[in-house]
Amino acid sequence: MKQNYRLTIMYDGSRYYGFQRQPDKDTIQGKIESVLRILTQDDSLEVIGAGRTDAGVHALNMIANVFMDVELSPKEIENYLNRYLPDDICVKKVDFAGPRFHARYNALGKTYRYTCYYGDEKPVFERKYVYCLESKPDVEKMKSAANILLGEHDFHNFCMNPRMKKSTVRKVDRIDIVENGPKLEFYVHGTGFLQNMVRIIVGTLLEVGFGEKTEQDVLYALNTQERCKAGATAPAQGLCMMKVDYD
Amino acid sequence: MKQNYRLTIMYDGSRYYGFQRQPDKDTIQGKIESVLRILTQDDSLEVIGAGRTDAGVHALNMIANVFMDVELSPKEIENYLNRYLPDDICVKKVDFAGPRFHARYNALGKTYRYTCYYGDEKPVFERKYVYCLESKPDVEKMKSAANILLGEHDFHNFCMNPRMKKSTVRKVDRIDIVENGPKLEFYVHGTGFLQNMVRIIVGTLLEVGFGEKTEQDVLYALNTQERCKAGATAPAQGLCMMKVDYD
Repeated sequence: MKQNYRLTIMYDGSRYYGFQRQPDKDTIQGKIESVLRILTQDDSLEVIGAGRTDAGVHALNMIANVFMDVELSPKEIENYLNRYLPDDICVKKVDFAGPRFHARYNALGKTYRYTCYYGDEKPVFERKYVYCLESKPDVEKMKSAANILLGEHDFHNFCMNPRMKKSTVRKVDRIDIVENGPKLEFYVHGTGFLQNMVRIIVGTLLEVGFGEKTEQDVLYALNTQERCKAGATAPAQGLCMMKVDYD
Repeated sequence: MKQNYRLTIMYDGSRYYGFQRQPDKDTIQGKIESVLRILTQDDSLEVIGAGRTDAGVHALNMIANVFMDVELSPKEIENYLNRYLPDDICVKKVDFAGPRFHARYNALGKTYRYTCYYGDEKPVFERKYVYCLESKPDVEKMKSAANILLGEHDFHNFCMNPRMKKSTVRKVDRIDIVENGPKLEFYVHGTGFLQNMVRIIVGTLLEVGFGEKTEQDVLYALNTQERCKAGATAPAQGLCMMKVDYD
């Protein structure tokens, strides 16, 4: 009898082609499924992630679920996974989940953190987890522009492939910009995100902070039906999935 | 006319074969010399480091000196170096130095930090900067054994190649063991260190902390003229050069 399990996963995404399984490429889902397929001897086993982080994006608390028929306790499954997974993927927790729990469909909201760095010294130890800026952007301008994005909007101009989605309407209810030494952290919470949406939001706000875009540009990109460019897509390495909300 | 410069260097040593130049291998000295030889067009230029960190060892503040004849200001040399050095090496500061300043001969003392980690979760983001322990060692036992090592001793049993050195007498004046969340940091200060000496000190203290060695074993290794093993050499990745003292 298969039991549903919930996994809490932390990973350094630097050397992966994102979360989602791809043939002949290293992905987080692929690595975890390989280990669990050996454990269960079930080649049809699938790990369902709450979202599909892009190549190079990290996670502190990605949530996934998987149906398995194994003798081990959740703690033993956790230990087994951590023993055989590479050093850059950690399963922080394995829990029993109800049979109807689906990591993606049941997700009510997500928090991402995007980290920029503008210090004088090259961040040699954090270089894979931050986006290096040449100078400090204007934080007040960015905070003001961030307010424009809050609420429910059609984010089709803040998305890589808007045509692939039935609806590009999403609700963003929090964009906090926190100064942490020579780092700027953007905490973005919403009910769901389109492809590259957080990175485009951050890229857009940075352009505002550097005076390359105005609040009017942001308003226009948000409200026009036309295809027009919001800001550039900030690089993957600064992004980290922090939390997924469930009931 | 050549001017002497002092460099303060930070690096992630993970992918390097140590500080010291080696033919056909990536080293910190080799990388910095390559960039400066292009800048100065002087192929005999040499960068003299305060010490020779091993392969995989990191530095927050390695000091080096180099004689060069260039038009640039120290700040411009610093910018040039950081532009052309890889992401895992940062020159934090370039200063004018007196003609007699020699980074190695003038070094009066050095501080190293060695970081162990015994948390439940694999440290995916710090995995290259800590040594993972299966459990927490007894810190009080280690502190007590560390006191035995303080002062001037013949550390020939705490050295990789004691026969290569004229004298294996060194003075260690500080070993602080600091608990920092699920990390244990060993701060070791001395006038100079033999090859692998800090790593063998830490390895020995860990064996005491895990009950594999007693204070008597440490005393014996320190005082006997015989060749006997102190503890194992703790892995390079946990070690970081923190500070070099000069007059």
